[in-house]
Amino acid sequence: MADHGGADLKARLVRAEEIARVAGALALDYFNRRETLVVETKRDLQDVVSIADREVENLIRSRVRQVYPNDGILGEEYGLETGTSEFTWVIDPIDGTSPFVNGMPNWCVSIGLLHQGVPVVGVISAPCHKELYAAALGMGATLNGKTLVLNDARNIRNAVTGIGANNYVKPAFVAKMVENLLEAGGNFIRNGSGALMLAYVAAGRLVGYYEPHMHAWDCMAGYCLVKEAGGFYHPFPTDGDKLTKGAVVLAAAPGAIDDLKKIAGL
Amino acid sequence: MADHGGADLKARLVRAEEIARVAGALALDYFNRRETLVVETKRDLQDVVSIADREVENLIRSRVRQVYPNDGILGEEYGLETGTSEFTWVIDPIDGTSPFVNGMPNWCVSIGLLHQGVPVVGVISAPCHKELYAAALGMGATLNGKTLVLNDARNIRNAVTGIGANNYVKPAFVAKMVENLLEAGGNFIRNGSGALMLAYVAAGRLVGYYEPHMHAWDCMAGYCLVKEAGGFYHPFPTDGDKLTKGAVVLAAAPGAIDDLKKIAGL
Repeated sequence: MADHGGADLKARLVRAEEIARVAGALALDYFNRRETLVVETKRDLQDVVSIADREVENLIRSRVRQVYPNDGILGEEYGLETGTSEFTWVIDPIDGTSPFVNGMPNWCVSIGLLHQGVPVVGVISAPCHKELYAAALGMGATLNGKTLVLNDARNIRNAVTGIGANNYVKPAFVAKMVENLLEAGGNFIRNGSGALMLAYVAAGRLVGYYEPHMHAWDCMAGYCLVKEAGGFYHPFPTDGDKLTKGAVVLAAAPGAIDDLKKIAGL
Repeated sequence: MADHGGADLKARLVRAEEIARVAGALALDYFNRRETLVVETKRDLQDVVSIADREVENLIRSRVRQVYPNDGILGEEYGLETGTSEFTWVIDPIDGTSPFVNGMPNWCVSIGLLHQGVPVVGVISAPCHKELYAAALGMGATLNGKTLVLNDARNIRNAVTGIGANNYVKPAFVAKMVENLLEAGGNFIRNGSGALMLAYVAAGRLVGYYEPHMHAWDCMAGYCLVKEAGGFYHPFPTDGDKLTKGAVVLAAAPGAIDDLKKIAGL
């Protein structure tokens, strides 16, 4: 394994956990007074955003810059600021904005860190459930401090798979992926937050996650978590401007990899 | 409106809330030590049950009988005990057993009450979220004591719809309903608990819920909640042995009724 960050990585993990806790608390404060938020729409009526997303992202960016001013930062709301180090933070201030603004608890703060394009830190805070998922390359994955290790006996037939989709994907394509998963003996949930479902894969609650089109900020933290728990992820392209574009996302426990890759046509 | 239970209804609502709180606490205790549960399967590998379902149902049945020994009781795990009054309690001790045994928080205790086949009380406890939904016919619906009133401006295009399915429904049928909903401009979640998603309809978090095949214990409490919040439900057949069989379930806020009925072919 290449040296991705070395001794510095542990410090960055600790910093990411600190930031995720503070960002999660701010997001939860907005959630608890969500009836006062003005909800705006982006690509369509189902693609929503509010000041909560923006202010949480601003908080994360400022806290990263305080300690790592030379790192790049990519966030859902404010895009990419390139850095001069080999590190790029990849953040989704609120993943699951639709559940968030509608009052459902399935949303999270997702903070990933790339080193030369490889996810090396992943921290996800799910404030409504008081859960903090954290991982760094080679250091394992934890949920509230408890080590996560995937069970090799789980597969798509005896466990549940998470799926997601958005308006980049045609309805017939979404329908076909649902049909293929069910025909293969699988079952699905979709709780509204892809990042949280990736954290659930790391925790063994879901056996895999598949979404035909996601962005880096939705998946990078979850990818690091899944890998460190003993699972697989389909690499997200990071060369050049690909990092800011969408791509297929798939992560799985060992026993679900082949079935899910087949369903996704990978 | 027919007199469904009259003055006695308030007392039964209060009793249902008391029972739901105690049952929710027992279920949560099992959930917190779920790694010790032996998970059995029923119709297929995705249809799971454990002692938690059975013991929570036993608790609810015994507490109902203490006060209302002449009422009928229908539960998911132990079937129908007919009564001599015009009331039948319809209970799902843990709706969302799959999320429950896999460690996800989206499950609930669902307690409904029928009078002459009409849902007149609905109480749903979501212990992981510390939420208690309660309604009685003509008395309104509440969430943790706060009155729920649906917003007429919400429809399938500007809000989220819940869906569900199980192995009674062919994969191609599930795929088609997903495709139709997305083509109509809708978006869906499926959190793994139909009863909880019906409660979310009553709370305005989802604009509707559709599942092609559910049982009475999955929907009756939610139906009462949705109606009392100002929504619509498609009647569940209760004549003769139909009460113990499956049927299509659909509930919606006013602005989503027509679209969802069309998608469901109703």
